[in-house]
Amino acid sequence: MNFASDNWAGAHPQIAEALARHATGFAAAYGNSDLDKVVKAKFSEVFERDVDVFFVATGTAANSLAMTAFAKPGGVFFAHREAHMLVDECGAPEYLSGGGRLCPVDGPLGRMDPAQLDAAIRRYPAQFLHGGQPAGVSVTQSSEIGTVYSLDELGAIADVARSHKLPLHMDGARFANALVSLGCTPAEMTWKRGIDIVSFGGTKNGCWCAEALVVLNPESAPGMPFIHKRAAQLFSKSRFVSAQFEAYFADDLWLKSARHSNAMAKRLAELFEKAPGARLAWQPQANEVFAILRDDRANALAAAGARFYDWHAPHGADLKLRTGEVLFRFVTSFATTEQEVEKTFSIISRAS
Amino acid sequence: MNFASDNWAGAHPQIAEALARHATGFAAAYGNSDLDKVVKAKFSEVFERDVDVFFVATGTAANSLAMTAFAKPGGVFFAHREAHMLVDECGAPEYLSGGGRLCPVDGPLGRMDPAQLDAAIRRYPAQFLHGGQPAGVSVTQSSEIGTVYSLDELGAIADVARSHKLPLHMDGARFANALVSLGCTPAEMTWKRGIDIVSFGGTKNGCWCAEALVVLNPESAPGMPFIHKRAAQLFSKSRFVSAQFEAYFADDLWLKSARHSNAMAKRLAELFEKAPGARLAWQPQANEVFAILRDDRANALAAAGARFYDWHAPHGADLKLRTGEVLFRFVTSFATTEQEVEKTFSIISRAS
Amino acid sequence: MNFASDNWAGAHPQIAEALARHATGFAAAYGNSDLDKVVKAKFSEVFERDVDVFFVATGTAANSLAMTAFAKPGGVFFAHREAHMLVDECGAPEYLSGGGRLCPVDGPLGRMDPAQLDAAIRRYPAQFLHGGQPAGVSVTQSSEIGTVYSLDELGAIADVARSHKLPLHMDGARFANALVSLGCTPAEMTWKRGIDIVSFGGTKNGCWCAEALVVLNPESAPGMPFIHKRAAQLFSKSRFVSAQFEAYFADDLWLKSARHSNAMAKRLAELFEKAPGARLAWQPQANEVFAILRDDRANALAAAGARFYDWHAPHGADLKLRTGEVLFRFVTSFATTEQEVEKTFSIISRAS
Amino acid sequence: MNFASDNWAGAHPQIAEALARHATGFAAAYGNSDLDKVVKAKFSEVFERDVDVFFVATGTAANSLAMTAFAKPGGVFFAHREAHMLVDECGAPEYLSGGGRLCPVDGPLGRMDPAQLDAAIRRYPAQFLHGGQPAGVSVTQSSEIGTVYSLDELGAIADVARSHKLPLHMDGARFANALVSLGCTPAEMTWKRGIDIVSFGGTKNGCWCAEALVVLNPESAPGMPFIHKRAAQLFSKSRFVSAQFEAYFADDLWLKSARHSNAMAKRLAELFEKAPGARLAWQPQANEVFAILRDDRANALAAAGARFYDWHAPHGADLKLRTGEVLFRFVTSFATTEQEVEKTFSIISRAS
Repeated sequence: MNFASDNWAGAHPQIAEALARHATGFAAAYGNSDLDKVVKAKFSEVFERDVDVFFVATGTAANSLAMTAFAKPGGVFFAHREAHMLVDECGAPEYLSGGGRLCPVDGPLGRMDPAQLDAAIRRYPAQFLHGGQPAGVSVTQSSEIGTVYSLDELGAIADVARSHKLPLHMDGARFANALVSLGCTPAEMTWKRGIDIVSFGGTKNGCWCAEALVVLNPESAPGMPFIHKRAAQLFSKSRFVSAQFEAYFADDLWLKSARHSNAMAKRLAELFEKAPGARLAWQPQANEVFAILRDDRANALAAAGARFYDWHAPHGADLKLRTGEVLFRFVTSFATTEQEVEKTFSIISRAS
Repeated sequence: MNFASDNWAGAHPQIAEALARHATGFAAAYGNSDLDKVVKAKFSEVFERDVDVFFVATGTAANSLAMTAFAKPGGVFFAHREAHMLVDECGAPEYLSGGGRLCPVDGPLGRMDPAQLDAAIRRYPAQFLHGGQPAGVSVTQSSEIGTVYSLDELGAIADVARSHKLPLHMDGARFANALVSLGCTPAEMTWKRGIDIVSFGGTKNGCWCAEALVVLNPESAPGMPFIHKRAAQLFSKSRFVSAQFEAYFADDLWLKSARHSNAMAKRLAELFEKAPGARLAWQPQANEVFAILRDDRANALAAAGARFYDWHAPHGADLKLRTGEVLFRFVTSFATTEQEVEKTFSIISRAS
Repeated sequence: MNFASDNWAGAHPQIAEALARHATGFAAAYGNSDLDKVVKAKFSEVFERDVDVFFVATGTAANSLAMTAFAKPGGVFFAHREAHMLVDECGAPEYLSGGGRLCPVDGPLGRMDPAQLDAAIRRYPAQFLHGGQPAGVSVTQSSEIGTVYSLDELGAIADVARSHKLPLHMDGARFANALVSLGCTPAEMTWKRGIDIVSFGGTKNGCWCAEALVVLNPESAPGMPFIHKRAAQLFSKSRFVSAQFEAYFADDLWLKSARHSNAMAKRLAELFEKAPGARLAWQPQANEVFAILRDDRANALAAAGARFYDWHAPHGADLKLRTGEVLFRFVTSFATTEQEVEKTFSIISRAS
Repeated sequence: MNFASDNWAGAHPQIAEALARHATGFAAAYGNSDLDKVVKAKFSEVFERDVDVFFVATGTAANSLAMTAFAKPGGVFFAHREAHMLVDECGAPEYLSGGGRLCPVDGPLGRMDPAQLDAAIRRYPAQFLHGGQPAGVSVTQSSEIGTVYSLDELGAIADVARSHKLPLHMDGARFANALVSLGCTPAEMTWKRGIDIVSFGGTKNGCWCAEALVVLNPESAPGMPFIHKRAAQLFSKSRFVSAQFEAYFADDLWLKSARHSNAMAKRLAELFEKAPGARLAWQPQANEVFAILRDDRANALAAAGARFYDWHAPHGADLKLRTGEVLFRFVTSFATTEQEVEKTFSIISRAS
């Protein structure tokens, strides 16, 4: 019963197998192998558009280099107050972008409210030298709290960004989970709705280390090859990432894994709704479930060896926590089994 | 016959196998898994000292973060003119260290001359505000041109660094090749001779992606956990690196692979000494052979499918190139076979 | 009737005279002239402590270099939401500090609330790698909206900073105005209450360009000479700043000028309380008056040639603005005359 | 007899007078006063072209912000090995440009050799990711050792820069001295020969603090207003700089002062050629004289109260120093008197 995070899971067997398969033989380094080229072409196919792809070590790197590409002197980037960039990246976006500022934007359930985004941007009028200048917007899909922007909601964010002539980035650390949740195509969830560049994460969905910065609109990210190399993110044996992505895309493994994770989350949510001493904080839309448990139930679960984290209430959310209640996050992954989910329910139910 | 670079080789079967073996199950992320801890302890055992270990994506990252840890305002780092940091890292050390300067130091055959290092440092008197201030020294072992500092030569460099109170970094992208060349222990090649921090490379010696910054003297690199995370180099599924290093150190795989590479280089060098239309530029001491070939011989070799790069003459070297002669680099690796080496000789010999 | 800003005034005649007096003769550059030394000694006398003094071009430079001295990897600086650093410095603190983050702290009337400061710092637990780490606190005295921290309020902020082992900076762009408002000594308003470093502004109080970073606690700002020079802030003909400060401190010109400015502000405030169609937003404590005027009154005033700016309501303030009412800022300076103030009143009073 | 540096002189009486004259009254801050506008228009007149002008605190700031405007990821700037940026700016260009690299270029007598410049740039092939990318060229006029590029020599440098599509900066800390030495117009010495941006120094030529970044080709320096403000270089009471430049340009004060300095240097050089125990190192072309003195003569001079610095031999220069001979630098300024020069000669002549 490990719900600590989807990055606690290892690698999907097909990913591991692909790595082993490509281990032999010589191939050009630094992204120039035949396999690298095939995989990059695959990205263009997946996104139905010619894209540039840059493999990076971490989602933090992908996000930070997108901001670096957007950077201007005195530049300000706008993202949800709970966004990974703002909360969990140790200042990497600010550091790598040469001192850009991250401006938090509020909105319910982990999604920026377009009106609040617009208001936040307006506080930095483009030609007011003293305040700095807006430089870009970032949206997280799925969000840090397991919710998903609808296509129209993405479009509304993009409209605001476009009205201020700002490029738009998507932090897709859990891209696949959002995609299968919406049941749309990558193109529909990105450039068809105004996204210019994506942090495309494979690691949390069954890869070992497969993160890519996918540039959909090259005008939004000039100089990216040098930005990427200068940040010490250009792998020499790049095929070790390509091999993972090859397997990731083959036979829709990525979509199947995401569907499984989401289904496990949904099932877990249903059980929390039924379990005594437990309730859902909000409905999950991807692979993260936020539930409020009475602490005796949580203790029982932990005692049984389950792993999960307590979580802070999102800004502005009123969870109406009663004494003895705590908010917890449960993350599912390709490796989560139905048995684990059912066992979780059974322990909670028994706990009283 | 692929001598393009040791990063054109894939992964050693034992490395690939270890990755597959550790693919299942859940484990804590961000360097906190049991395997991570075991492997980090192994590093301390290997270095015969309590060391801090930070996995990074690339050798460039390792080098750059060492410089970042050394950085001071107006800081200057000293390295050989041909060092990777100066030639092949796209300004990453300058960028990541917040604008440090790399000062080239000369010395024959890829190794800094201690007197020249001393003179270079003296051009930045410690309290002359206008010039900036010396901040650190970096030595490459084995060097960019396949030579190796003897232990006494390392000690002489360290003496200069210490006399200026400067920390000393070793770029060990090919650490193992140097180590087996000298036939000494890691401790003897590093902290016993005054090295404070090492970029410990496993990738070129048979791993997929296994680079570590090994801090031998923690006073030389304060704040490294934050420096590391802020640079977007903290892997989430860190065990994918640990698994590689586990296999790397097991049964001395790393030393065996390096001995093999070096032996292949030595054999290739012997053959170049014998082959018509070829001569050695200098004796290899690790796994890189620099040879001067008549272009007809080089063409014949290339036509037979061999991969190798022409190279610029090192600063100050007088190779006495005659018309039609070109300097080439041949790199061997764990994957180089004796057959490839012999075939190379036979093609050159036949080429006239 | 110019109340646009205290930096719209020119130089006090005694400042101009000192510059002319020191124009002749040769003197060592870069802060090493006899006059520089005399003036720096004067700073130590003024602060009753051995201080280090660094002249800079702007208050933004002073603030930003203080943050640079405080900087850590992933570092976060805490200041009031309305602080100059956060609102008016175009990202200079972030840029010059190598990518530090500014975290806004709320509190009524331009002053941080100690409890809110403590809560903001606690959101960055010192050893939580992902979030970054607290690096320093900055307090503005007098504040951006003309209010002044009492000595006890400063002490309470310092207690919070100290409890988190954070250095404490004072943005003293209007240091003198706060000082005479409190009627205390520079020592009492700074290091005796826990301030480590001060941006000491002379420009707004009658100098041409006289800003100094005053280091009260050298441990809080190591390496400052290099930080200062590297930021291109080391004036060559430094005596042109020293000459200004010499006159500034002579015969308490700085205190007299500040008392005059504050008195003009107080008088203006009294008149706004009496004038029809006008009311004070809050009581001024230094040289900035914030008043709410009916727009017909404001228009009449502007039509008569008065200069003043409309202002945004401070975060969290409820000004109960009625239709047709606008918040305005009026800044007084050494150059403000009683006549201007009275004329302002008379125009407003007549305006209906 | 003060020949230590032209920044040891104070302010020219007309500069001091202008500052006093503009001290009274209110004027818009941050470069928006009427005087600021008049002076900026004057720059356009002086350069016979619409230029953008940014006042900065120091020549180091001007140079560094030019490089910042030129910056690219992994960018390399080319300047003479003895250039101020490389030797005397404490890493400010590297720091402020976000980690750019300065590449030294050789050439006799303080001037880059175009062929060597071309060779240096070619070592960074534009699309070789690993090496970084050329980003700009900087030429110092007059040079650090008192020599001046002819217009054709400037044109040759510009041809090299243009052939690599690189912008070209002129460090004109001693712009006026070079200008009157060549007897040409500012336009002829700059944009008519391919210069894109100038660090225009007034401080060394009789101002207190008057340095301007003059953008001749706006395409070479996009975003400069924000670059300037973000670097904490936007003066609030900007008219204190404008007042200096107003007087500087009025009645050709700047040219007259430079002609005087140069004439004093020329006279000093003639005397060194005649004086026993002294000889010129090379002919001065601006206001710096480099002479080789026997140490008894130098000691006599110093004992008589003269101020001057010993100097390192420029890279590659063979001064044929005999035992007891030392190279010294003598700098003249608007404040240097004929009496001082003659007295210097008389002391040296008497010294034996």
